[in-house]
Order: sequence, then C-alpha cells, then structure tokens
Amino acid sequence: MSRFFSEKYSKLTPYVPGEQPRDRSYNKLNTNESPFPPSPLAQRLARQAAGDLQLYSDPECLALKRVAAERFGISEDEIIFTNSSDETLSFLFMAFCDSKRPAVFADITYGFYRVFAARENVPFREIPLRDDFSIDVSDYMDAKGTVFIANPNAPTGLALSASDIERIAASNPDNVVVVDEAYVDFGAESCLPLIKKYGNLIVTQTFSKSRSLAGGRLGFAAGNRELIADINTIKYSVNPYDVNRMSMAAGIGALLDEEYFRDCCERIKENRAYTQKRLAELGFEFNPSLSNFVFARRPGISGEELYLKLKARGVLIRHFGSERLRDHIRITIGSREQMDGFFGALEAILSEAGLI
Amino acid sequence: MSRFFSEKYSKLTPYVPGEQPRDRSYNKLNTNESPFPPSPLAQRLARQAAGDLQLYSDPECLALKRVAAERFGISEDEIIFTNSSDETLSFLFMAFCDSKRPAVFADITYGFYRVFAARENVPFREIPLRDDFSIDVSDYMDAKGTVFIANPNAPTGLALSASDIERIAASNPDNVVVVDEAYVDFGAESCLPLIKKYGNLIVTQTFSKSRSLAGGRLGFAAGNRELIADINTIKYSVNPYDVNRMSMAAGIGALLDEEYFRDCCERIKENRAYTQKRLAELGFEFNPSLSNFVFARRPGISGEELYLKLKARGVLIRHFGSERLRDHIRITIGSREQMDGFFGALEAILSEAGLI
Repeated sequence: MSRFFSEKYSKLTPYVPGEQPRDRSYNKLNTNESPFPPSPLAQRLARQAAGDLQLYSDPECLALKRVAAERFGISEDEIIFTNSSDETLSFLFMAFCDSKRPAVFADITYGFYRVFAARENVPFREIPLRDDFSIDVSDYMDAKGTVFIANPNAPTGLALSASDIERIAASNPDNVVVVDEAYVDFGAESCLPLIKKYGNLIVTQTFSKSRSLAGGRLGFAAGNRELIADINTIKYSVNPYDVNRMSMAAGIGALLDEEYFRDCCERIKENRAYTQKRLAELGFEFNPSLSNFVFARRPGISGEELYLKLKARGVLIRHFGSERLRDHIRITIGSREQMDGFFGALEAILSEAGLI
Repeated sequence: MSRFFSEKYSKLTPYVPGEQPRDRSYNKLNTNESPFPPSPLAQRLARQAAGDLQLYSDPECLALKRVAAERFGISEDEIIFTNSSDETLSFLFMAFCDSKRPAVFADITYGFYRVFAARENVPFREIPLRDDFSIDVSDYMDAKGTVFIANPNAPTGLALSASDIERIAASNPDNVVVVDEAYVDFGAESCLPLIKKYGNLIVTQTFSKSRSLAGGRLGFAAGNRELIADINTIKYSVNPYDVNRMSMAAGIGALLDEEYFRDCCERIKENRAYTQKRLAELGFEFNPSLSNFVFARRPGISGEELYLKLKARGVLIRHFGSERLRDHIRITIGSREQMDGFFGALEAILSEAGLI
C-alpha cells in the first residue's frame, strides 16, 4: 500500500478470482464458465456492433431492456443492466445497505458479498448454513437488514424453492431481499415473476453462465421500479456508460436465441447427471446440484490434495481453504469431453492413492 | 427515492450524460465522439474475441498491458486498465481521497469530479479558472489535497504544458496529482513520460476519443507501481473482470495500429483549424482549442438560443447552464461533412437573427 492510500479503504480485502493460469493449457473446470460458445446470433450482433464503437453506448441500455422485459414478462423500468452482475451486486450494497441497514447473508456463499460489505463499511451478519450446507429459511424471517441470497447458492449448488424465497420476502416488508440467480437456469426456480408482487424483492442474474457471456460482462437487477430507479442513481454516480456496445448487442442476441439457450442448459444438466453418477461410483459424497457445478468430497483424500494432483494432471477445479469447505472440491460442469478428461485424471489419482 | 435507499448516498447528484436523443437522426456534435470508426485492426480483433465470450476476461488485462507498456515506454506494472476512464477516475477518488485528503480541481472542468467526490463523501476544493478560462498554475502549488487536472481541460479545450504539470507535481510531494488526458492526443503534451520521475503523478487516458472506442469503454491509469497496486486493490474490491474480452482486443488493435491513430488525430486537427477559421469569420470568440471540440460564444446571441436553434435544425451541440458557461456552446470536431452541415445551420440562424 502506498503512503497515499485512502484511510477509509485501507482495510480492504479484495476478492480473489478463480485462477486463470497461463503456464499451460488446462482442462478448465474452476470458474463455472460455460463449455459452449455464445449463441451464433449473440456473436453476430456483437461483431456488427464492433463497427460503431466510435459512438458511446446507450447508458439506459434501452434496446436491451426492451428485449429483456419482453422475455421476462416485466416492464422496461423494472430492470437495469450493468457491466456484470458483480457490478449489479456492488451497486446493491451501495444502494440498500448503510450503518442502520446491515447486510445479511449466509456464512458460506458468494465471496463477493463480504468484500462489498467491507468496502462500503456497512455492518454485516453471516448466518451459518446447516451442517448439510442447506439454508434454514426461518433464519431469514424478519432479518433486520438487507438480505442477499444466492439461489442456487455457491459453492454448494443447493437451492431454495421460489415459495421459500417468497416466505422470506413476505416476512421482510421493511428490508430489501436480493436473490442472486447467477446459476438459476440450470434447474432452480426463478423468482423473477415475484418482483411484481413484492416491492422489496430484487432478482439479479448474469449472462456469464447459462448465456455463455462471461467474457462479455453483462448482468442485471430486476425489481420494483422505485428500487430500480435507486440503483440507477448509483450507476449514474459511478459509470453511466458501464455497458459497452458489443456486450449490449451480444446480450440482445443471447436473449432472442431462446432455443440455443435452452439447449445449452439441457446439455449442462445432462452432463451434470453424468458427472454426479460417476462421482458417486468413485465414492464421492455430495448434495445433488441445481447449478453448473458440483460440490463434493471424497473421504480418504483432502480437497487440497485432489486440487493439486488434478492440477498437476492438467485439470483445474476450485478448492476453498476455509474450515468448513476444505474437504470439498468444486467442479464446473463442462462438455462431455471435459468431464471425461476430468474423470480420467481423477481415477488415476484415486488409484495411486489406493482408494479405488 | 425508495424508502430503502441508503442514507449515505441519499444526497447523490448523479452525472448528467450528454443527450443521446432517439427522436430523429442528428448531426451529433455534442459528446466529443470521433467521427471515424475504430481502426480496422481494432474491429477485427474485437470481432475475433466475440467467439470466445464463454470464458472470463483476464482481470489483469495482461495482453493489453504488454502492448500499452511497449507503446508508452513504461512497465506493465505501471499501468492499469478499467471499463472506461470514468471508472479509472472513480477508482482514483476512492484510492487517494479521504476526509484528510480533499480533492482539488478547477471550478470549471469535467463534471464527474464533483460527482465522485460527493459520492465518496470526501471534501473537495474548487479552484476558479481565470476569467479567460485558463488555469493559474500557482493555484495548485502545495495543494493540500489530491489534485485532478483535466489536460486539456473540458469544456474549455485549453491545456497546460507538460512543464507546468511538472511544476505542480514537484510542488506536491505529499499529494497525488492526477492528470486526466482524455483529450491529449489532439495537440497537447502528454505527461506519461513524467510518471517515471514523479512517484506522486498519475496520468489517465481514455480510448473514447482519439482511438474511436467510446462505445467500447476502455481507459487506463499510469503511474508509479505502488500507486497502480493501490488502484488494483480498489478494482478487485469493485469489479475485477471489469474489462470485457472484446474491448480488450479492440484496445490492443487500436494501440498497434499507430498509423490509423495518427491519421485520425491529424484529420481532427485539420477540421478543428477549419472550424475555428469559419467560427472567427462568423464573429465567434474562443480560445484556440487543443482538444476535439471548440468552446465558443457569439456576442449578440445566447448559448442556449444557439443550442436550441441548432437542435431544431438537426444539429446537436452541448450547452452548459451554469453562470460562467451559459454564453458558450461546445462544438465537437466531426468530419468535414459534419462541420459543413453545422455551419450551414449556423449561418441560417445568424442570418435570421440579423447578426450576419
């Protein structure tokens, strides 16, 4: 830290992204990316937009909002787009948390919530997951703070039903309830339809996973128009033109090409079933996932050892060092070929360790 | 504002972007965009990147940093890229201002400085420009705060010399001095070479103007590696993957295609000379600009009247309502055809008003 660094941010602990190594080519199952390229229509529209980059992008993202509103059955003023759902979430911590409105989230969830709360210097309360990593809905009744729930949760892959989320929203009339649906398209229920019913409910989604646009950086929040206007106030005080022209165009293509989107999600679900079946056969323990990753452990070998030995064999998965998570590994669901490559390496490792 | 909005941001006055009207097609000379499309190489690389968007972008922007470091004669750890130089500046207000380090900038300058200072709740001191809109360098000696100087300044188009900036940097050993060079490529001197000499100097640039990538959103800060590491801490606490793959690729192309870049800048300078000559012939008063816009007034007709009458004739320019600026209009330098269209409308208006 330089001697010039702001006192107010001097305690920051920045987010640690999943590793993006450059030393060799890996079978990359560590950052929950899609194994499929963006929809051909998304690619085509993005490429077209590259010719007009001398002009600013539309800060309102109106063309994109129109398509999204139509797709999701909401109004244009009930949605706001940003440069990734990380940015959406960052704006939400700014807009709806302060010293009197702490942030409330699970002790095991998306790591950025803690980073944002700390950065904004707002108090936060972490609610422990149950021993089986599930969320106890009753913990979130009348939460006395702004609730953030990743649904499905990461890195556990477990989801609450929409009716459970509805109970939480209904019990928190004086608190904003944010449902982070980054992984919702792989089998969980979206709460988007509930934003019409609950004026305190915000749903965020990303185009990074199910829409194959991680490198395009596009996310949104949907909710009551007053809440969306608040988020817009933040956006216009940070970076109004945050969404570039190409990503906006790609987003439109990704939304219009519903068939491609559904097909990609189906293939991930098939590969997930295949992965879970083979993991079970190899003695892994896990809860069935509703996301595009599986969070699992193998009695007899630590998560770290699996991570390191897989990496040595050219397969990257994610390992978390904290107490409750360190036995586990998180494996992104890739293509069938990627999963077979993973299992080839995994079987060799388990065999060498005398575990199979 | 909803009843849920954070108290700490309740006083925000968001930035007001230049209008992007949709009611008809305008001769758009209001937001300082380039009239030229991005370099063909920038377009080609951006289009190629559209095929790989399922993968996250590199949060370090290493490939882009390498090209930029080579181009600017600095090291890779002396530069950081962000999603537009607006975001760069936002990060700088976070990293280097706090209650004890006020922000110091001109009373007439880029409007976002005030927005960022207010958002971060840091005190700021505005130093009046001289009556002729020039900066008095002596006002910035030992400034007792973090200095932000747009050079050339907006909306005035006037620039300090690099040696003037050097005097300011030298006289502020305990303050960070930020030089915002959004418009530097149109004739002013860049202070980039000075970052090696002054550990307190940060230079920001954008790809929005001279590199025709306004809709791509790409900017950077360059400075001592410790300062850059500080900015990185902020970036990784806000949005580590802020630069998308396509913009990163476009940025590489824009930097590699130096000939196209120089040619565009030359053409803008030629069109600026042409514009200033014709404005003078029509009785306008202005200081010669070193940017891609001219800030001028015509005795006998108000800035607002000119703005409205030009708009009615399909020409958009920028008008600012504040006391010291309201006589003026700011005209972006476009293509020769755009400028001729502007002058056609302008002559008709002045003629109708009996002024020529």
